[in-house]
Amino acid sequence: MEIIARIRSDFSGKFGIPRQSGLVEALGAEIVFEPEYRVEEALRGLEEYSHIWVIWGFHENAGKEWSPTVRPPRLGGNTRIGVFATRSPYRPNPIGLSCVRLLEIRHGAEGPVLCIAGGDMMDGTPVYDIKPYLPYVDIRPDATGGFTDRTVKRTVAVEIPAILRERMPAEKIDALEGILREDPRPAYQDDPDREYAFEFGGKRIRFHVENSVLKVTEIY
Amino acid sequence: MEIIARIRSDFSGKFGIPRQSGLVEALGAEIVFEPEYRVEEALRGLEEYSHIWVIWGFHENAGKEWSPTVRPPRLGGNTRIGVFATRSPYRPNPIGLSCVRLLEIRHGAEGPVLCIAGGDMMDGTPVYDIKPYLPYVDIRPDATGGFTDRTVKRTVAVEIPAILRERMPAEKIDALEGILREDPRPAYQDDPDREYAFEFGGKRIRFHVENSVLKVTEIY
Repeated sequence: MEIIARIRSDFSGKFGIPRQSGLVEALGAEIVFEPEYRVEEALRGLEEYSHIWVIWGFHENAGKEWSPTVRPPRLGGNTRIGVFATRSPYRPNPIGLSCVRLLEIRHGAEGPVLCIAGGDMMDGTPVYDIKPYLPYVDIRPDATGGFTDRTVKRTVAVEIPAILRERMPAEKIDALEGILREDPRPAYQDDPDREYAFEFGGKRIRFHVENSVLKVTEIY
Repeated sequence: MEIIARIRSDFSGKFGIPRQSGLVEALGAEIVFEPEYRVEEALRGLEEYSHIWVIWGFHENAGKEWSPTVRPPRLGGNTRIGVFATRSPYRPNPIGLSCVRLLEIRHGAEGPVLCIAGGDMMDGTPVYDIKPYLPYVDIRPDATGGFTDRTVKRTVAVEIPAILRERMPAEKIDALEGILREDPRPAYQDDPDREYAFEFGGKRIRFHVENSVLKVTEIY
């Protein structure tokens, strides 16, 4: 398995990354090919697809032992589910699968760069393959979703004071709000006094959550 | 990348395999775990999902050179498309991605075996990962499909004489008809005198196609 590209995203760490691809559509990122794969021809026709599959590596988990069961955050963190019944990163082969929107193929000094939206990958993530999303086979209207059908999608209201909002590049505000709306906290934590922090777009974001309202307290 | 399982299917060769997963729902297959991955717990909860993703290797193509462009059979075989705009097997990393229906998890001497339908993998295909198909993120209703939106889905009428039909195990007849209905010929071949043959379920099937009617001429 060769690394054909790397993700360039606003996440320097894992906290805050949406739990699945497609949840935060305002979240932009880029797929930058490795020098030997900067071949324009290899992408011919891809611009006609609205969505692509990205097969990538959980490089932060490489070499770690896998466990037959995991505790999905969406189930409150204390129910054990088989690893193959989840998209958990702690798998025998640490491979990730994401469906993202293809916004544009930019051409420049780095060769063709795929501008994508709705990703869930950390900055620097190695990419092994890119495939078109084929609606006629990839949309399975009758599919049922196991425990994900029964868990309530929990979102929170987001408050970012105007003075902090200005510290964020304008084009990243929608994405930041989208990330926060998904509530990045583990599902089993609901302590209004607990302060959380993560990095996004080169800024450090601090927040706490009380009564389903997420308040940003610092951006620096 | 470790092989966690192998596909057990009725295809000993590539010819006849549906072009994508999900096209022939009557086509059954099995995913048999390698001895060290026969861990019942690792599948706990998977039975609640109707569909799964299988990430696997095009082992027949391993080690072959990749080409930046390929000629998809659906485009008649003479239009070049970038390899990343197709699901072609000749990719920098020969990884396949299939969505299949999960019929049952059987438990026995081989550990847990996943009984699946709608696959597009050869017998012996190495499997690297299994993930649940998550309808809430994997169904993208607004996705557009590039050239696959414009090519007409070409199926043929299938005729299998009663005397040949009896030579096939009864439970494989529907699958065989489904495979043939998809017209396994390359799109650019339409010669009524040309005879085709392939192996399916341990039998050799011979057929020819005239005026969109596929006639099976021999099963042995």
